[in-house]
Amino acid sequence: MNAYHNKKVLITGGLGFIGSNLARALVAQGARVTIVDSLIPQYGGNLFNIESIREMVHVNICDVRDPHAMKHLVKGKDFLFNLAGQTSHIDSMTNPQTDLDINASAQLSILEACRLNNPEIKIVFASTRQLYGKPDYLPVDEKHPIRPVDVNGINKLAGEWYHLLYDNVYGIRACALRLTNTYGPGMRVKDARQTFLGIWVRQLLEGMPIKVFGDGEQLRDFNYVDDCVNALLLAGASGQAKGKVYNLGSQEVIGLKALAEKIVSLGFGGSYELVPFPEERKAIDIGDYYSDFSLISMELDWLPQVNLQKGLLNTIEYYSRHKSVYWDET
Amino acid sequence: MNAYHNKKVLITGGLGFIGSNLARALVAQGARVTIVDSLIPQYGGNLFNIESIREMVHVNICDVRDPHAMKHLVKGKDFLFNLAGQTSHIDSMTNPQTDLDINASAQLSILEACRLNNPEIKIVFASTRQLYGKPDYLPVDEKHPIRPVDVNGINKLAGEWYHLLYDNVYGIRACALRLTNTYGPGMRVKDARQTFLGIWVRQLLEGMPIKVFGDGEQLRDFNYVDDCVNALLLAGASGQAKGKVYNLGSQEVIGLKALAEKIVSLGFGGSYELVPFPEERKAIDIGDYYSDFSLISMELDWLPQVNLQKGLLNTIEYYSRHKSVYWDET
Repeated sequence: MNAYHNKKVLITGGLGFIGSNLARALVAQGARVTIVDSLIPQYGGNLFNIESIREMVHVNICDVRDPHAMKHLVKGKDFLFNLAGQTSHIDSMTNPQTDLDINASAQLSILEACRLNNPEIKIVFASTRQLYGKPDYLPVDEKHPIRPVDVNGINKLAGEWYHLLYDNVYGIRACALRLTNTYGPGMRVKDARQTFLGIWVRQLLEGMPIKVFGDGEQLRDFNYVDDCVNALLLAGASGQAKGKVYNLGSQEVIGLKALAEKIVSLGFGGSYELVPFPEERKAIDIGDYYSDFSLISMELDWLPQVNLQKGLLNTIEYYSRHKSVYWDET
Repeated sequence: MNAYHNKKVLITGGLGFIGSNLARALVAQGARVTIVDSLIPQYGGNLFNIESIREMVHVNICDVRDPHAMKHLVKGKDFLFNLAGQTSHIDSMTNPQTDLDINASAQLSILEACRLNNPEIKIVFASTRQLYGKPDYLPVDEKHPIRPVDVNGINKLAGEWYHLLYDNVYGIRACALRLTNTYGPGMRVKDARQTFLGIWVRQLLEGMPIKVFGDGEQLRDFNYVDDCVNALLLAGASGQAKGKVYNLGSQEVIGLKALAEKIVSLGFGGSYELVPFPEERKAIDIGDYYSDFSLISMELDWLPQVNLQKGLLNTIEYYSRHKSVYWDET
């Protein structure tokens, strides 16, 4: 596969966790990568994330809520990986309008920019399994009812549907991947805004007990970031993905307590403890969740390659090496 | 039923078609009504709509996109009938950001205003059957998948879900009615922005042939505005409606050609003709649609009382009397 050789690729949220890993993979394939990131301290962007490719990409610091900047930046690009987003569920409840501006309004203006200035562009949108809310059945496939449990879920859904609508009505090639829990080097570890695994890794490396909410029996699925990046690349390159929504997921499904045990057993020390759900988390907890990802497996030939044992080891090694950067980065 | 006697009621979009009819019904029940309307010429608001109750209501001209005004206006109210919206599907595609600002962003800021300043308020939100898109099955019940076909549908959905979320998470009592085609005195007849029936009535009274798109076999259901108002009142008064979504609908289902025939046979003259779908309409046409409204019938004891024959007659009589106002009004 080298659909990206010499292609001009725009990545929104490109200094973030998944965006920076995607940028590295695209550079390795010979793509000409432009990264858009706002470097808002509460979000995932971090220049250290692209240190190894700093001279091989163009970095444009701006906010996706800036319609004039985005109008210019989409011009002439072959691909847009649209990953910029506000991911914190708690922040979406305390600042709902900001969440709406980033996850819905900015998405609409990016699509308008493409429609008016570059309708040939191919777009992959990073959506989320949060849209399904509390599952009616497991594993959750793409036909599962949509039932967001927080402002973030509602706005991400609007953002996803604008993409599909612009595909259906205007023929702009767009598709969406509904990501499940993604983890790996580059994830935010300062707090739980991006993934609870970030704060777990930090607690482990600081010698604090990992805090598992509730009884720890809640099932989840996880993708190592390389597998997520691979899915994004396959979706961008495939003609079949046009107008589609695909779940990501994993063959490994694990309870949160068992996950904590696994992390503690990796040789970096640490411990875990069960603690009651904080009130604001409890209100939006969804119980067990794991995806049926057979659609993307069949249509795009995607399967996760990195198991939890290996992925967690890579992750914790990375942060034990680079913790000064991620702990202190503001 | 007199849940509204002496109650303070706020109606957004209260100079519009449904809002003004609702205001009249509330005044008749002894409510103290405040109307919010922006009087934007392209939308449904029109002071003539409330002429008969002009001195019995408080009219506050402002835009629901004005968060400071709304913060003040929700204070001290017992009920909010939240009807302000951008309803034109075509306008939502040409000005998607405006549609988002009114149908999603303003709704979120109204709900934030209620959460912060009046969490005891009871809210009824006017949603739309447009959220279902092209039906998978008929009649369409509330469990039917959601699949908006235009920007308007996506934004109305976000607006609806913010209401349900604020109910579920913050306990603010809110429910939503998914309205089907509503018609009657006070509807916009200058163009088809609100309902195609508006422009049909106008064509009839101007002696122009009514234009029926396609083969005219598309099935639809219609509610006379009094029935719609009655549903809104029942939903506001009922404790059972909390956090719920209800379809409206009708026992009478009719093809568009048959509807045109019925209108032409009412004694006001006129004719109809079949014309091909305009391109921009065809892209978002949903084929046959009619609702299953058994949930609201069971839980709130609502049934439409006014049949098409009677409702259409009332409507056309109204516009033949008042056409100078509605034709010229800007």
